[in-house]
Amino acid sequence: MRMIKGKTITDVSGIIACGIASGIKKDNKKDLCIIYSKLKATSAAVFTYNKVKAAPVIVNMENIKNDNTQAIVINSGNANSCTGQKGLENARKMIETAAHCLNLLPEEVLVASTGALAAQLPMEVVVPGIKKACGQLSEEAGMDAAEAILSTDTKTKTIAVEFEIEGKKSRIAGMAKGSTMVHPNMGTMLCFMVTDANITKDMLHKALKESVDMSFNMISVDGDTSTSDMVIVLANGASASRQIDTVNEAYKTFSEALNYVAVELAKMIAKDGEGSTKFIEVEVVNARTLQEARTAARAVVSSNLVKCECFGSAVKWSTIACVLGYSSIDMNSENFDIFIGSEKDKVQIVKRALEANYDKALLDSIVSEDFINILIDLKNGESRATAWGCDLTCTYVKANAYLLQS
Amino acid sequence: MRMIKGKTITDVSGIIACGIASGIKKDNKKDLCIIYSKLKATSAAVFTYNKVKAAPVIVNMENIKNDNTQAIVINSGNANSCTGQKGLENARKMIETAAHCLNLLPEEVLVASTGALAAQLPMEVVVPGIKKACGQLSEEAGMDAAEAILSTDTKTKTIAVEFEIEGKKSRIAGMAKGSTMVHPNMGTMLCFMVTDANITKDMLHKALKESVDMSFNMISVDGDTSTSDMVIVLANGASASRQIDTVNEAYKTFSEALNYVAVELAKMIAKDGEGSTKFIEVEVVNARTLQEARTAARAVVSSNLVKCECFGSAVKWSTIACVLGYSSIDMNSENFDIFIGSEKDKVQIVKRALEANYDKALLDSIVSEDFINILIDLKNGESRATAWGCDLTCTYVKANAYLLQS
Repeated sequence: MRMIKGKTITDVSGIIACGIASGIKKDNKKDLCIIYSKLKATSAAVFTYNKVKAAPVIVNMENIKNDNTQAIVINSGNANSCTGQKGLENARKMIETAAHCLNLLPEEVLVASTGALAAQLPMEVVVPGIKKACGQLSEEAGMDAAEAILSTDTKTKTIAVEFEIEGKKSRIAGMAKGSTMVHPNMGTMLCFMVTDANITKDMLHKALKESVDMSFNMISVDGDTSTSDMVIVLANGASASRQIDTVNEAYKTFSEALNYVAVELAKMIAKDGEGSTKFIEVEVVNARTLQEARTAARAVVSSNLVKCECFGSAVKWSTIACVLGYSSIDMNSENFDIFIGSEKDKVQIVKRALEANYDKALLDSIVSEDFINILIDLKNGESRATAWGCDLTCTYVKANAYLLQS
Repeated sequence: MRMIKGKTITDVSGIIACGIASGIKKDNKKDLCIIYSKLKATSAAVFTYNKVKAAPVIVNMENIKNDNTQAIVINSGNANSCTGQKGLENARKMIETAAHCLNLLPEEVLVASTGALAAQLPMEVVVPGIKKACGQLSEEAGMDAAEAILSTDTKTKTIAVEFEIEGKKSRIAGMAKGSTMVHPNMGTMLCFMVTDANITKDMLHKALKESVDMSFNMISVDGDTSTSDMVIVLANGASASRQIDTVNEAYKTFSEALNYVAVELAKMIAKDGEGSTKFIEVEVVNARTLQEARTAARAVVSSNLVKCECFGSAVKWSTIACVLGYSSIDMNSENFDIFIGSEKDKVQIVKRALEANYDKALLDSIVSEDFINILIDLKNGESRATAWGCDLTCTYVKANAYLLQS
């Protein structure tokens, strides 16, 4: 597997895209994106488990069942969530407009929205925007597309990789936006991946589900799960490799590449969390089960106290021990080890559930860096998991208290 | 039922107490408390579910089984948590010292500690402190006792009530300390209640369990459950009322008074949350089950986003709807109402899952007050629950990032 330099979704054969400013956002910022596959494509998706679902989620849950998915239309600046019947009509109108321009059936198009909640979409700019966007699809606009789906993200989040299946080259690329707040309301995690691999819908869904569990389900910015979260993957088979229709070597190769892309995009989201100053990685090893490893890693990275301590470069082992204790895993509270590391160094701060003898100056220097790795050895099994997050800062509090508005 | 003005634990017949400065805390602050019942007493307790349990919790889980519990010895300034074998020895030494002075068996004494984690108790001041404290037990020292258990709490938390069982007066009093941070580590929720009612150990435990579920288990400061949390009740029968040994009218009267005391103390803890500027109450009505009502109320009061929005006096209905959606309850996402109220006013902000037509200036004035009530009508059952919490502020973040230390 190798990284593709351009690293956008249009680096995948048969994929064109665009990102334009339609007028939903102020200041001529890009706010409308279309992803289009020239060939018929298989799709799979994972949607938010939130029972209050945004209109695009409800509409997509139907359309994802279709055998062919050739386009995704996405707007930022308005989440079309908590918008009732009118919101559903608007989501369907977005799909119909794109389908008409691209000569597709409505059920061959998916839709996503991110931005303010509880406000109706300004359809008077959205509809002309979609028409204009359809005319600007190109192989060069991958980065424009990645920019058009952002809300208060400070960076675009894209990646593309190439790998071989039975000697034939395939690619997977993806773009994402983070779970950060959007004026005047909460944000959303969106991710769109495309591949030219040839894979059945069932196998694509299985691979996506597994990759989401180890990537997007392992990041935490603030513990609040949005009404709009979705991860979609399109596979158009342009690479002409043999179809993956069962769990074989080709599936494993594909799955590995998809996991890599998903994990890297998830980490980019965690790094760019609202108001964050530090990127936190929590690895749990030797847990009893994979589920317990994931639960423990997620609990530590989600703890407000751990996040505050990382912000202040003052990580306490007793706080981490306390979080493990309430995380509901079956741990041996008298035998676990904890290590804290940075890019360069690592120190063992806990040995057999008690403070280890370590160099305090070295620990201080490690936790002062903007990447903090917390490694927890539970010593009661063989499973491992990693979770990612960011620190909790005054900027986060102020932003979400609407105290940063000018 | 009526409130007792003195409102301390020593307002209950047969209970004496003290609170002294032993030297665990700096600046001659009170840090050692003893609660003593002149008569033999029945006890019940609920302990933290955290698997990493502080030494006093482990020791008490044994001693609580004893038929007679006549004293509780409590220190602040050090939580005796994450302290291993040495910590257990120190907790037992505290009990033995108090038992010896008070002419009790060790198993007739309980122990509690709150303050810094991962540091051994300074037994050279704790042991003489306990001896001194035993000589200062009195009916006048109820407020000293309440003060000696505090960590960074800004206020003592005490209450006492009187009620009648079959024409005989009984009292229940309690004192608590909050879940706020202690330099240099996380805090603890402790509550000690005493009553002169006459009740069997089984019935006392049943009543305590029920009251904790609707009080201390319904408050959230930061979602981090301490290693040391405990709620203890002693019943010494001094009121000479008939023994409560089954669920009858007398049990109900007792239980109601205990619930009242527990809820009021829990609310005092929520109000005094670390760095808080607002007290938040979330009432959920017409839920399918009691469990779902509690889950929903707790989810809303625990949400970082809701807490930030309360801090900024900028509560959004879509945030509350989003939290309900991910809370795991079985809700009808197309039919729920939300009201926001203060001491004086109330407005309906959501009607049938969509924004209601309301006076925005009135809402702004309501959410600017320091008490915010959020009432959620789920309209799919008959159960109700209330949860309490506080806002999330920059002061909380800075305190727990150790950025407020001088």
